[in-house]
Amino acid sequence: MAKVNIKPLADRVLIAPMEAETKTASGIIIPDTAKEKPQRGKVVAAGPGTKDEPMTVKVGDTVLYGKYSGTELKFEGSDYLMMRESDILAII
Amino acid sequence: MAKVNIKPLADRVLIAPMEAETKTASGIIIPDTAKEKPQRGKVVAAGPGTKDEPMTVKVGDTVLYGKYSGTELKFEGSDYLMMRESDILAII
Amino acid sequence: MAKVNIKPLADRVLIAPMEAETKTASGIIIPDTAKEKPQRGKVVAAGPGTKDEPMTVKVGDTVLYGKYSGTELKFEGSDYLMMRESDILAII
Amino acid sequence: MAKVNIKPLADRVLIAPMEAETKTASGIIIPDTAKEKPQRGKVVAAGPGTKDEPMTVKVGDTVLYGKYSGTELKFEGSDYLMMRESDILAII
Amino acid sequence: MAKVNIKPLADRVLIAPMEAETKTASGIIIPDTAKEKPQRGKVVAAGPGTKDEPMTVKVGDTVLYGKYSGTELKFEGSDYLMMRESDILAII
Amino acid sequence: MAKVNIKPLADRVLIAPMEAETKTASGIIIPDTAKEKPQRGKVVAAGPGTKDEPMTVKVGDTVLYGKYSGTELKFEGSDYLMMRESDILAII
Amino acid sequence: MAKVNIKPLADRVLIAPMEAETKTASGIIIPDTAKEKPQRGKVVAAGPGTKDEPMTVKVGDTVLYGKYSGTELKFEGSDYLMMRESDILAII
Repeated sequence: MAKVNIKPLADRVLIAPMEAETKTASGIIIPDTAKEKPQRGKVVAAGPGTKDEPMTVKVGDTVLYGKYSGTELKFEGSDYLMMRESDILAII
Repeated sequence: MAKVNIKPLADRVLIAPMEAETKTASGIIIPDTAKEKPQRGKVVAAGPGTKDEPMTVKVGDTVLYGKYSGTELKFEGSDYLMMRESDILAII
Repeated sequence: MAKVNIKPLADRVLIAPMEAETKTASGIIIPDTAKEKPQRGKVVAAGPGTKDEPMTVKVGDTVLYGKYSGTELKFEGSDYLMMRESDILAII
Repeated sequence: MAKVNIKPLADRVLIAPMEAETKTASGIIIPDTAKEKPQRGKVVAAGPGTKDEPMTVKVGDTVLYGKYSGTELKFEGSDYLMMRESDILAII
Repeated sequence: MAKVNIKPLADRVLIAPMEAETKTASGIIIPDTAKEKPQRGKVVAAGPGTKDEPMTVKVGDTVLYGKYSGTELKFEGSDYLMMRESDILAII
Repeated sequence: MAKVNIKPLADRVLIAPMEAETKTASGIIIPDTAKEKPQRGKVVAAGPGTKDEPMTVKVGDTVLYGKYSGTELKFEGSDYLMMRESDILAII
Repeated sequence: MAKVNIKPLADRVLIAPMEAETKTASGIIIPDTAKEKPQRGKVVAAGPGTKDEPMTVKVGDTVLYGKYSGTELKFEGSDYLMMRESDILAII
């Protein structure tokens, strides 16, 4: 994974999405038919947090997030998502 | 129940739903005809809480929650729900 | 009234509804034709409250609440309602 | 006016409405044609207030309130209204 | 102007509206054609304010307010308006 | 510009609008075709601010504000706008 | 880039937009087909921040922001955008 020179503001996180069907180390599989499918990705950059919300996730974490969370970014041919930490469901 | 290696963020809770018709130890039965049917499940993972909301439920608790609460996750053939503790009605 | 082994979370209260036409000890009668009919019930379980909202009602109180307040639960043939204390209008 | 044995919760107030056309001691007359007609009533029970809102009205006060404020209650043949103190416009 | 025996609650103010076309001491004229016409009036009673909002206007002030602000009251043949201080634009 | 004897309440500001096409000292030109055209004006009166929002603009400042901000006032033949400081974009 | 004599209020930032297809120093490329395309620009003026939100960006930063963020301004033939810092996604 290419190093990304980007500093998200506040509680924002830049995520490299992973294939939705891949089985994770902890064995979580995202179903195709769930009404609101969570997605998995790798954190590649994280903001400093806010006064009210210190950050929990850190670069390198694999995270789950809702399907329509975040804003798409393209970087040297790869897709990224920028979202707020509050859009992240869990670290897996 | 398989051990689940997942760390919910903030006040989120991962729940293994139980059969809706099963009678619990405390005798609560969820009716079929209620306009908003609460559901029962087992807490399998819980976040650390937030500054404003320390967690009350813990892993192993049987809880009641609203029918449309949470996001579905599939794990080694079983279904889970990820929700916020504020979506949980009671420990039974 | 059967003892109920259930721990409501936060500021939630479990209520055993009473017949709407019954006259209470204090003589309150709920009218049939009111545009928003309040209901009466007995508190059978109450949560610990929240940091911002300590609880006022306690188990055994007879309370008034709005007609569409709460979530229905069935327990050994009886109906209960789970609601937040802020949905309760008064102790009678 | 019959004594009413009812304890409103938080910042709620129980009011015995007065005839809308009656002229009050201070001479206020509620017009028939106002687009949002305020109503007058007597406070018969008042809650303890909340942490953020200590109570101003007390039992016996005559108050003005908006026409669609509150929830109707019937008591030994008389009508009452349960509302929050913030729905009360003034003491007259 | 008749003395008015009324105690507005919280941050409410009772206002005696003035003729919309009258030129004030400071020369402000409210236009007929403004899309949202402000109105002028005399403060005849003011509440004590709230914990978060101490009062700025006082009895006798001439104030500007938005056209649809407040609730109409009739008193010995005169019209009054009850509104919150936050609906008042300026003292003139 | 005539002196205006008016005291805006809280964080309100009275503004004398300037011609939209005039080039300012700092060279800002408001375009005709912008989807949401900001406007320029001179501050002629400013409130004392609020507990949460001390005032930044002062009488004599030239400011930019959104096209539909504020309430129109007429004064000795000139048009003014009353708005909250939070509707002001910048001092130019 | 011309020096801009403008003082944004509170947490507002004046941005000189950059060509959407240009590749940045850090290699971020904004895709054409993203459902919500972020944009890049140079900060040319920044407000002092607010009590709750001290500023993070400073003049000279290249930033990413959402496509429909901000209000357009024209200055000596160039286009600018005025937006709140919270509309800025990241510094790149």
